[in-house]
Amino acid sequence: MDDASATAPEPVRDGISTTGPERNWPNNSWWVAAHGSEVTDKPILRWILEMPVALYRSEAGVVSALHNRCPHRWAPLHLGHVEGADLVCPYHGFQFAPSGQCVRVPSQATTPPAIRVRAFPAVERYGFVWIWTGEVEKADPNLIPADLAYLSDPAWHTVWGYKSVNGNYMQIKENVLDLTHFAFLHKNSLQVSGWDRAPEVEMGDGRVGYVQVHDMEPLAPVYAVPAGKPIGKLANRTTRGTQLSPGAHHAEVAIHEPAPEDGGLAHFSLRMVHLTTPVSIARSHYYWAMARDHGEPFDVEATRGMADIVFGEDIAMVEATQQMARCAIDHDQAVEFSVSADQAAIQGRRLVQAMVNAERAG
Amino acid sequence: MDDASATAPEPVRDGISTTGPERNWPNNSWWVAAHGSEVTDKPILRWILEMPVALYRSEAGVVSALHNRCPHRWAPLHLGHVEGADLVCPYHGFQFAPSGQCVRVPSQATTPPAIRVRAFPAVERYGFVWIWTGEVEKADPNLIPADLAYLSDPAWHTVWGYKSVNGNYMQIKENVLDLTHFAFLHKNSLQVSGWDRAPEVEMGDGRVGYVQVHDMEPLAPVYAVPAGKPIGKLANRTTRGTQLSPGAHHAEVAIHEPAPEDGGLAHFSLRMVHLTTPVSIARSHYYWAMARDHGEPFDVEATRGMADIVFGEDIAMVEATQQMARCAIDHDQAVEFSVSADQAAIQGRRLVQAMVNAERAG
Amino acid sequence: MDDASATAPEPVRDGISTTGPERNWPNNSWWVAAHGSEVTDKPILRWILEMPVALYRSEAGVVSALHNRCPHRWAPLHLGHVEGADLVCPYHGFQFAPSGQCVRVPSQATTPPAIRVRAFPAVERYGFVWIWTGEVEKADPNLIPADLAYLSDPAWHTVWGYKSVNGNYMQIKENVLDLTHFAFLHKNSLQVSGWDRAPEVEMGDGRVGYVQVHDMEPLAPVYAVPAGKPIGKLANRTTRGTQLSPGAHHAEVAIHEPAPEDGGLAHFSLRMVHLTTPVSIARSHYYWAMARDHGEPFDVEATRGMADIVFGEDIAMVEATQQMARCAIDHDQAVEFSVSADQAAIQGRRLVQAMVNAERAG
Repeated sequence: MDDASATAPEPVRDGISTTGPERNWPNNSWWVAAHGSEVTDKPILRWILEMPVALYRSEAGVVSALHNRCPHRWAPLHLGHVEGADLVCPYHGFQFAPSGQCVRVPSQATTPPAIRVRAFPAVERYGFVWIWTGEVEKADPNLIPADLAYLSDPAWHTVWGYKSVNGNYMQIKENVLDLTHFAFLHKNSLQVSGWDRAPEVEMGDGRVGYVQVHDMEPLAPVYAVPAGKPIGKLANRTTRGTQLSPGAHHAEVAIHEPAPEDGGLAHFSLRMVHLTTPVSIARSHYYWAMARDHGEPFDVEATRGMADIVFGEDIAMVEATQQMARCAIDHDQAVEFSVSADQAAIQGRRLVQAMVNAERAG
Repeated sequence: MDDASATAPEPVRDGISTTGPERNWPNNSWWVAAHGSEVTDKPILRWILEMPVALYRSEAGVVSALHNRCPHRWAPLHLGHVEGADLVCPYHGFQFAPSGQCVRVPSQATTPPAIRVRAFPAVERYGFVWIWTGEVEKADPNLIPADLAYLSDPAWHTVWGYKSVNGNYMQIKENVLDLTHFAFLHKNSLQVSGWDRAPEVEMGDGRVGYVQVHDMEPLAPVYAVPAGKPIGKLANRTTRGTQLSPGAHHAEVAIHEPAPEDGGLAHFSLRMVHLTTPVSIARSHYYWAMARDHGEPFDVEATRGMADIVFGEDIAMVEATQQMARCAIDHDQAVEFSVSADQAAIQGRRLVQAMVNAERAG
Repeated sequence: MDDASATAPEPVRDGISTTGPERNWPNNSWWVAAHGSEVTDKPILRWILEMPVALYRSEAGVVSALHNRCPHRWAPLHLGHVEGADLVCPYHGFQFAPSGQCVRVPSQATTPPAIRVRAFPAVERYGFVWIWTGEVEKADPNLIPADLAYLSDPAWHTVWGYKSVNGNYMQIKENVLDLTHFAFLHKNSLQVSGWDRAPEVEMGDGRVGYVQVHDMEPLAPVYAVPAGKPIGKLANRTTRGTQLSPGAHHAEVAIHEPAPEDGGLAHFSLRMVHLTTPVSIARSHYYWAMARDHGEPFDVEATRGMADIVFGEDIAMVEATQQMARCAIDHDQAVEFSVSADQAAIQGRRLVQAMVNAERAG
């Protein structure tokens, strides 16, 4: 697992961020900033949407998120320490409440009320810490997709991981909205067959999804082994994926085996969650989770190992693509040609861009 | 030997290449992209004139060069695989013919004819792979300098090598057009004397050359040892060098020893080829070759070792100069003062600049 | 100790230095370029105010400073060698006198008088080499602060060191003008108490200083041990610090112990010098010195070790602050809130800015 605290943007150039015109994320959204287990009373730094954010857990166990720059002399607050519910600056000891308000300046008796730092609404849910980067009055926790509740449901076995990606977050999102790449990029690692046509696309409620039914295809090891099935046995497979929000995508592979062995499973599912958070236009945090409703005893290491290989192939492709784009003199003239299989990804991109445009217009 | 596939430009800044106004290379030219032995059925990436190029050899042995960006989702084609004469994208399996035309989209039955990638004319000659980066209709293979035919002539012993250079390609070209630096930069490594005056300069036919005759100077080890001569023996030395094209320079040291030992050589020659290809304004590929018409048995390792030391000194100087230029606040105000010995280099620069200007005007 | 010769600016971007509008140093000033012991007959490179400077010592022992770019083909002069009082270019052997005048071009009989390189006035004083980066006619050696004479006074024991800092030089200067950070940043390393109020500020003669009196505070180990005092003994402590010039700051801790032990010291002092020289807007050279009028035998290693820890804490904070500022998209909108303890630092900044403004206006 990569170190999320080390994932930072490149320096802003000449005082001008590149993300003015290029920004392709909405600010009014919940983004995963960390896994809950990463946030303790020792503060950590996470770069989110090109902003440094200090995350810490109070003595009472509550997670807070403050802009990581002391308004006095810009020291990084995450190098300080927690005192009760507050965060104390490491440089001159200015103390900040979870609201962002400075409550103590040690070198003088009074604390000017103007000294405050931006506080980000933070919610710990489904095992992850979500922060809201837009207008505070719009930070409704109900916007965190409830579809992910199974991540904290004991009926499901869940594994999570993190990858630091040198690529734009939408590249990761688009990758999981078009699975025809399985036949080439994951040919050897997944050996899942049947990707010779485009899926059905479903839209609505600010979401886009695809569904693809494969009738009586051989079970790949990734599906067969955890379910105690023979590799290569024929089964019906329904793959669905949904872009839930700019920061969250989930997918399910539901398998129906019409003629199970004695005592064998007829129905079982594998779910995947992709939580992508922009660090900058060219870097992203990528938290993933996998969940199964079967597999006793559950083989955590095998599931994590498989995710590392397969998601590693995705990331390598995203990063190589990004590298091509950034270094080529003619990248401005480059045109994308889309085919039928790109329909869901194109709609996903449009949904997010519409949110960005609305924020710009508003 | 450095890894040519790892030599890439720095990221384009803020979407704007620096080479607009600064570009000092013509597009209508043949450039060495690789040594022939480097190009196999496992595709490789070479950055040429700030463009990523995928090079591969078909099953029939023919070398092709395609722009290394799939027009679908920009995946780097060099990570794909060769199928017959075609290159298959590693991401979704789009298949491209040597002409650049897409001939297969695996997720659908039809292939839109608009899906194509730029193909670069490629020729394998004198052991190297040359590609043409300009207008295709002007790509005449006869423009590859025939003077280099000795590189594949069995009467000559040839050694080649590669260096990745953090400097502009013209710095390397100008370095080999003024050998008076031998007396200082290569003082210890070459010990070749007589550099106390400027050479004669010869122009014509889009080329510039110099010739310098040294009468009865002591033979340095680099000349004496491979020819079986005593070090320090007096001989006549004629050094000629010619800028053949923007990408190619060759030089010859022809030695005449008026009073050879019994059975010893009276005449023998060493030739050097400098093949320089821009990666970006600040980086270059540098393929070199050395050839001798003498030296049985031919000591390949000694020749390569000598080249590594001497060309290494040149590259270190080019890179240190480049570093000074790039970091200094006042580099815009810097003026160059030239002396007599710079005449050939100045003419060489003018010839190339005239080609660049003509392309811009046309 | 870091390697000062390796401290260089980042490449200038797109031909435009960032220091046009941001520059916060005057050119008409003496800056420490090296410790005298670093300058020998083997030339060294120092980047000063975004300019590369070659420093060398002549056979007669005199230090010279030349702009490190041969006006012929921009080779870095510091890679050359010293001949008498002159510096010889490593590339083609052009020879430069300490005045910057070229006195020899080896490949021809005559030397064009126009070939010359900028020479910087250089003075070796108080153990350090100071160079003047502005108008030559204003380079008055009396502007080097005479307050630092104790650095070469045998009555004082002096230790010096160097740190390469990824931060603006004014951040270092402001850090030493507000010592209330001792209570947090150096809490564990120094354990010096009493920082619960702002100091008195003194202005005049182009300088700004502070003074802070602590009555009968316990002696920290850093003060007690070298003076042979018991740790924690109560004593009066007067701390003064003065910004002497844009490049120099000195401070003194004068201790008075009203009831010394038998034969023990009643008065003793520790002095600190901070010599900060801009490399670029975001990098600095930082030479420091510490001097004591007590401590026989003087423990050089303990003093140097303490400085490494404490100044290392300062530098880490400066660099972390700088990193936050450079990477954050919103750093342009960042506002600094100052409190009473910042008064001296604010005045120090104004003094330097006034010098910069006067140069711009004039």
